[in-house]
Amino acid sequence: MRLRNVQGAKERLVDSSVVINNPISLKGSWNKVFKNDNDIYIEVGMGKGQFITQLAKAYPDRNFIGIEKYDSVLIRAVEKLEEENIPNLFLIRFDATELLDIFEQGEISGVYLNFSDPWPKNRHEKRRLTSHIFLNQYKQLMKCDGKIEFKTDNQGLFEFSLISLNSFGAKLELVSLDLHKSDIKENYMTEYEEKFSKKGQRIYKLEAKL
Amino acid sequence: MRLRNVQGAKERLVDSSVVINNPISLKGSWNKVFKNDNDIYIEVGMGKGQFITQLAKAYPDRNFIGIEKYDSVLIRAVEKLEEENIPNLFLIRFDATELLDIFEQGEISGVYLNFSDPWPKNRHEKRRLTSHIFLNQYKQLMKCDGKIEFKTDNQGLFEFSLISLNSFGAKLELVSLDLHKSDIKENYMTEYEEKFSKKGQRIYKLEAKL
Repeated sequence: MRLRNVQGAKERLVDSSVVINNPISLKGSWNKVFKNDNDIYIEVGMGKGQFITQLAKAYPDRNFIGIEKYDSVLIRAVEKLEEENIPNLFLIRFDATELLDIFEQGEISGVYLNFSDPWPKNRHEKRRLTSHIFLNQYKQLMKCDGKIEFKTDNQGLFEFSLISLNSFGAKLELVSLDLHKSDIKENYMTEYEEKFSKKGQRIYKLEAKL
Repeated sequence: MRLRNVQGAKERLVDSSVVINNPISLKGSWNKVFKNDNDIYIEVGMGKGQFITQLAKAYPDRNFIGIEKYDSVLIRAVEKLEEENIPNLFLIRFDATELLDIFEQGEISGVYLNFSDPWPKNRHEKRRLTSHIFLNQYKQLMKCDGKIEFKTDNQGLFEFSLISLNSFGAKLELVSLDLHKSDIKENYMTEYEEKFSKKGQRIYKLEAKL
């Protein structure tokens, strides 16, 4: 996603009721934020938030946290969310490299990764959200039977992710090489997915237990 | 491949110098057939034989065995091969379900699977050449560091194969979701691959250690 600087974004995020500003202090006690003990799912790199918003509405008995690194992207999600009242969804601005600072071991039930930055250069491999560095984090913060669900239109990133998950020892439970033409019925689309699938771009999806 | 009955095929195969008629008796001593101790590679379901013929010519210091179940298909390969003299390639007519009857543990260095029958119905899953039943055979007949190389244009079969190999504990070393547009240089095409890739069909490839 191309990033534009959005004036005053930082200040607006601090004041927003849908943004959690002190995530580190909540490590191990996210259930208090949601005021229940329902399962918690996170989307890492949630962008403008359409996917996780739809999911939170579809599953009111689950809790969701959208994580985004960039103020200027997060503010777009916040603007839309403030108009709605979705008690089982909060957003945080945080760097995905440090997820273990904000979640306790086993605190999370599932991780969603959608259209993550492909980082196509070999030397940037470790920055891909499906590299072992990140998988290792997800594994620690997830319950034993927790799953990651990953979608992308980027062929190279999907090829990399299959190999990375396999060598990590993950158990692939679903692989679709053309999601929108598959018989998988339930699919919540990101803004990006909507746009690119209309152009006939294939969407790849996998689900795996770590 | 559509099968046509070829009159007199059986008799012609028995008489052919490129066909080994008594493979079971050669279990553990295939090096005697080739009169050397070079590595032996097999193609399971070799069809008309273009792939393995090219490979055998490109690698004269390796031995190759093409395996095909159907007389009427094998005869096509035999007809072409009899015109050439390729000392490091032999063909056998044999059922892939019983490979351990003809190869000793660790006798084979690699297995090629090209455009295998997709057996799309769930109840036929076990017949797919990348199902656990077959992987288990390949694992036994291959050397420890032996690899399978698998190509197909069938999306469903490729999705199945990725999951099957992963749950078998195989190590994926290469995944290409569009082989002919990838930067993989070396590729020997089957007759089928040539035909379908010309129509713009994607070719999928993987390599894995069992």
